[in-house]
Amino acid sequence: MPAENAPPPDLLEFLSCELIECGRDFHRRGWSLGTSSNYSAVIGREPLTLLMTGSGFDKGRLQPEQFVVVDEEARSLNAASSKPSAEALLHTVLAKHGAGAVLHTHSVAATVLSEHFLKDGGLRIAGYEMLKGLAGIATHKSEAWIEIYPNTQDIAALATVIDARLQDPANPLRHGFLMAGHGLYTWGEDIAAARRQIEVLEFLFEVVTQKRLLFGSF
Amino acid sequence: MPAENAPPPDLLEFLSCELIECGRDFHRRGWSLGTSSNYSAVIGREPLTLLMTGSGFDKGRLQPEQFVVVDEEARSLNAASSKPSAEALLHTVLAKHGAGAVLHTHSVAATVLSEHFLKDGGLRIAGYEMLKGLAGIATHKSEAWIEIYPNTQDIAALATVIDARLQDPANPLRHGFLMAGHGLYTWGEDIAAARRQIEVLEFLFEVVTQKRLLFGSF
Amino acid sequence: MPAENAPPPDLLEFLSCELIECGRDFHRRGWSLGTSSNYSAVIGREPLTLLMTGSGFDKGRLQPEQFVVVDEEARSLNAASSKPSAEALLHTVLAKHGAGAVLHTHSVAATVLSEHFLKDGGLRIAGYEMLKGLAGIATHKSEAWIEIYPNTQDIAALATVIDARLQDPANPLRHGFLMAGHGLYTWGEDIAAARRQIEVLEFLFEVVTQKRLLFGSF
Amino acid sequence: MPAENAPPPDLLEFLSCELIECGRDFHRRGWSLGTSSNYSAVIGREPLTLLMTGSGFDKGRLQPEQFVVVDEEARSLNAASSKPSAEALLHTVLAKHGAGAVLHTHSVAATVLSEHFLKDGGLRIAGYEMLKGLAGIATHKSEAWIEIYPNTQDIAALATVIDARLQDPANPLRHGFLMAGHGLYTWGEDIAAARRQIEVLEFLFEVVTQKRLLFGSF
Repeated sequence: MPAENAPPPDLLEFLSCELIECGRDFHRRGWSLGTSSNYSAVIGREPLTLLMTGSGFDKGRLQPEQFVVVDEEARSLNAASSKPSAEALLHTVLAKHGAGAVLHTHSVAATVLSEHFLKDGGLRIAGYEMLKGLAGIATHKSEAWIEIYPNTQDIAALATVIDARLQDPANPLRHGFLMAGHGLYTWGEDIAAARRQIEVLEFLFEVVTQKRLLFGSF
Repeated sequence: MPAENAPPPDLLEFLSCELIECGRDFHRRGWSLGTSSNYSAVIGREPLTLLMTGSGFDKGRLQPEQFVVVDEEARSLNAASSKPSAEALLHTVLAKHGAGAVLHTHSVAATVLSEHFLKDGGLRIAGYEMLKGLAGIATHKSEAWIEIYPNTQDIAALATVIDARLQDPANPLRHGFLMAGHGLYTWGEDIAAARRQIEVLEFLFEVVTQKRLLFGSF
Repeated sequence: MPAENAPPPDLLEFLSCELIECGRDFHRRGWSLGTSSNYSAVIGREPLTLLMTGSGFDKGRLQPEQFVVVDEEARSLNAASSKPSAEALLHTVLAKHGAGAVLHTHSVAATVLSEHFLKDGGLRIAGYEMLKGLAGIATHKSEAWIEIYPNTQDIAALATVIDARLQDPANPLRHGFLMAGHGLYTWGEDIAAARRQIEVLEFLFEVVTQKRLLFGSF
Repeated sequence: MPAENAPPPDLLEFLSCELIECGRDFHRRGWSLGTSSNYSAVIGREPLTLLMTGSGFDKGRLQPEQFVVVDEEARSLNAASSKPSAEALLHTVLAKHGAGAVLHTHSVAATVLSEHFLKDGGLRIAGYEMLKGLAGIATHKSEAWIEIYPNTQDIAALATVIDARLQDPANPLRHGFLMAGHGLYTWGEDIAAARRQIEVLEFLFEVVTQKRLLFGSF
């Protein structure tokens, strides 16, 4: 990154602290075990740069030097630093369309539900108060449709699909999406908003799971 | 609030510390995820004032400045402060009838059980030792009837219902109540007592859930 | 307590620190919610004195002054102190027969299993490696029979039954016992040993629960 | 150990700190309760020496002095120190074949699944993204076969079997193995890698458990 565009050190420190704290909490909850998951936050928009977790680190105890700065094509701007995650392109496409932070996690509930409901293309969740925690939902008499995509090694192709879905004028992708047998992507205007989204969605995945176990239906 | 009625700073600090600690624990347990939940404690009674969590904050790391002081009509007394929760009227009606603290949480068990048992108007829990942790219960040969109300956006109307139920001479509302698909309200003479109530009720919700999963009946 | 028999302050501090740490961990795990549970440790044996949690305190953040010292009849020896638990007599009878520490907890699994298996008088657990964590078991080709007693308000009567069962020459009570719909009592030669027992038993309760949920049998 | 071969104190301190931290986390998660489990890390290879948890300690709060140094025959090299675990020979056989760290845990899921699937000789897990966290797996279109052995008191005999399986040219033992009704052994090139393996495998055990509970099949 050219020196004249360097982000203020305070901003980088703030963003990495917040993402480290996300990792600590998500690892404790079992949403980011085994070095899985990746998190990012927008540093600046002209040009677009993101701070992102490097590949292969324990999310329960991230260190500041385990982050990378990437450009809008998900290329690392730190010559000697850790490698960005293979899934970095999903982060940058979400950031281009307005996300200030993107959180990707691997919970048991997201893994099992996404595998099962892939055949339906998504999971419908309706009627719960907690839905009001999702951006743009103001009443519990709402429903969220969480789209599910097949898991893939071809992240560039999936990023193109997500890019189109985000711009769909009739019915844009909202709230987050699942990759089948893999996990959840969600986002918000900043890290706190993205964290709220992920807590709401994981809570709702637990609710539909528990309802099915108790009463036999979703 | 007129300066001559200002509560002692030590009291405000004590109450906010205790509610911050509630938030930390309830968030960790998954009872207050996604900025859900609200908590309050009575500061004084002549006139009635409550310290209450502001709307939209992460309950896992509340800050002292994220609380508001409200009067008995749930109006904020801090000119420039955060907005009280939309549900503040439920807190003040409970405080008027003697509660010293009110805790409202959103657990998975409370969400699923309240949705299912709304048709019965409540959930009966009987015969467990843990019932003795509820105010006014002295033997395990007791039962608690936890009333369930439909979820609503019209909090003022629900507050009127709760107000009447608390004063019902034959069978007053006790222990707490559920809003269907939403969560639990409970209260006590102080924060410690309300916390005891919520821990007991959430424990009992887990017990009836587990019993049903294992043995097919409630 | 007469001054000449006063236990060394270091011992009291050590025992209360260890029991405070038990409470912190058990509360976190959901085994001691809502001010339930009580814990004790033997201070001295001539005469028998125990340090025991007072009645009604939050076990997640016990304070040193929330303990009481009791004699072998479970009478408080601290004139002005907190009241011993109603169940103190169960602690003293176990201590008389050799326990150096007694831990009583209220977990969801213990509550549900003890209610269900009361009709059989106990719960048989066999064939698991973790059984070797119980005092006196040296191979996984073992079984533990955890006796279950009806819950009661008459602790003195139950203490008499337990006293007799501990001295049964043919088949003495071992490992711990459950009170139906209430919780677990277990003990060890010291606090660490009692804690090992409780962790092993709660683990095994989770194992039989999970086995039943997955495969339909105990 | 002869003084001329003594490992640098910094290395021993680093390894014990890392294993203490493993214990703290695994105990919290319920994978190492009741003093169960044992962990080791290679100190040096000429001759082979391992730092290993001593027998019978609380894994939630291991102390540096609760480790032993053993040779390739699992004999303690510290005259006056704690006893190595009875299962130390399984650690040394894994270390001889390249493991830099070995982690053995006792989770509820591993206990129940290993008891049930012993009849099949192993547990097949296929199609999940999290599989990519296992050493040598690069795509989710993979499967892991986790072998299950009968539980035994004859660790020397099992160590011989494992030794042969690790050297099987056609189909060597990989990832980890289960002992029925007992727990999981896994390993990696260092402690961080072994920890990644254990988190991945325990996560996958939870996934297959949850899938079976929700949908009736594995």
